[in-house]
Amino acid sequence: MNEVQISQTVMFYDTDCGGVVSNIAYLRMVERARSALFESLGMDAAEMMKSQVFPAVIRTEIDYRRPARLGDEVIVSASFESVAKVRAICQFRLEIAGEQENQVSAEARQVVALVQMPSGRPKRMPSEWVSSVT
Amino acid sequence: MNEVQISQTVMFYDTDCGGVVSNIAYLRMVERARSALFESLGMDAAEMMKSQVFPAVIRTEIDYRRPARLGDEVIVSASFESVAKVRAICQFRLEIAGEQENQVSAEARQVVALVQMPSGRPKRMPSEWVSSVT
Amino acid sequence: MNEVQISQTVMFYDTDCGGVVSNIAYLRMVERARSALFESLGMDAAEMMKSQVFPAVIRTEIDYRRPARLGDEVIVSASFESVAKVRAICQFRLEIAGEQENQVSAEARQVVALVQMPSGRPKRMPSEWVSSVT
Amino acid sequence: MNEVQISQTVMFYDTDCGGVVSNIAYLRMVERARSALFESLGMDAAEMMKSQVFPAVIRTEIDYRRPARLGDEVIVSASFESVAKVRAICQFRLEIAGEQENQVSAEARQVVALVQMPSGRPKRMPSEWVSSVT
Repeated sequence: MNEVQISQTVMFYDTDCGGVVSNIAYLRMVERARSALFESLGMDAAEMMKSQVFPAVIRTEIDYRRPARLGDEVIVSASFESVAKVRAICQFRLEIAGEQENQVSAEARQVVALVQMPSGRPKRMPSEWVSSVT
Repeated sequence: MNEVQISQTVMFYDTDCGGVVSNIAYLRMVERARSALFESLGMDAAEMMKSQVFPAVIRTEIDYRRPARLGDEVIVSASFESVAKVRAICQFRLEIAGEQENQVSAEARQVVALVQMPSGRPKRMPSEWVSSVT
Repeated sequence: MNEVQISQTVMFYDTDCGGVVSNIAYLRMVERARSALFESLGMDAAEMMKSQVFPAVIRTEIDYRRPARLGDEVIVSASFESVAKVRAICQFRLEIAGEQENQVSAEARQVVALVQMPSGRPKRMPSEWVSSVT
Repeated sequence: MNEVQISQTVMFYDTDCGGVVSNIAYLRMVERARSALFESLGMDAAEMMKSQVFPAVIRTEIDYRRPARLGDEVIVSASFESVAKVRAICQFRLEIAGEQENQVSAEARQVVALVQMPSGRPKRMPSEWVSSVT
């Protein structure tokens, strides 16, 4: 199984006046991990520009477990849960790096389609993506 | 049933280079509607500061149906799906205002708890919130 | 002189863990006011799509005077300071609405060009914009 | 002179429907570089929490030279231009990494004060910061 990890330090702009990371800011970290996952399978920005095939998020689910705070290092792991004909489900685990052990901050899933621009028509998932899951 | 509506025009900063509203930006519109919903039940910012009771999003689900674009007027309706002892489920419908009829752009649900700061302990949902649903 | 005003309530996502509005979030309010200013002179999103002429910010200056907080109503006034052949300078005043009187929260200036897409070539400022200043 | 560099890949959420990085998104990159600069001089998040001394941006200037695009690697260099009694001026250079050479994307300056919370009173700049400039 193809799993990638990225790490991001929490900035002021990620937090809100509740003193912790805003529920919205986690989605930026998720996008960063998703980009790394797609890039690991050959779909980087240059390739998207050339092919004009872009990912489109069609559903997001995110469960907030434990708030991250300013300065925390958040490690996001991303992998495919499944890849079907025209939909891939990505899963994400966001952990706060700890001295002893990491703590789960949030878990997320995104259903993603690939669309051919400018028509907007859905594309079949690449066969390498399908085989990366099994 | 208590339902509130807010309306927001899509700005450049809401869009991405795919030409449509970024999946993340919809969450700002959802927050704006959720704030209006809570305010309609007496929980505005002044009240939060006084009571030090704040809403905490513990889960978000959002389905993207039809992308909104620069300049679109997005109307967000928010209401409670249910209010239990320590959790409320808010539901959101985001529509693109049309000349003839509106089109659904996204639908979302958020599970929200109320927490007493600085202890972070969960609070019971106000009885008015419970009765607003039934 | 053409001056427009917009009003925006501060949301959680506008604030940071310092307890006040993030320096970055004010720029969203500025963009909202700039869009209203341009729209008041005929340049709304529909017109941009049709003409493929878009505004490009080439410089921003912003002075933070007094932090706005969660729930504050921020009133942003926007007008042209000057409009030259290919550059307009917009000025912004952000005030926190008060019961007695408003308080200046920030002041900003943006130098804006108009660019013809997809060539990216700068366009002359519309004559109505020039005359709106004098 | 103390100079730090950070590098950030442009994500979808950094761009807007003009096809390039939004003027607002550059400010997140600037904040990331500023945090690295302060951390290099001993002021990291843990230290801020302990001392309750926080940086406050009181002015930002940013000139946009050349738009960065999805997938670009943006390298931000940050250093102090000057450090006076209660104000430091930070300068930033944002470059798009190129195969042959980098290209300047934007240049920025921020005037920063340090404030003691919760009083909000300004603090003197640390003597190490003053000496880091000369």
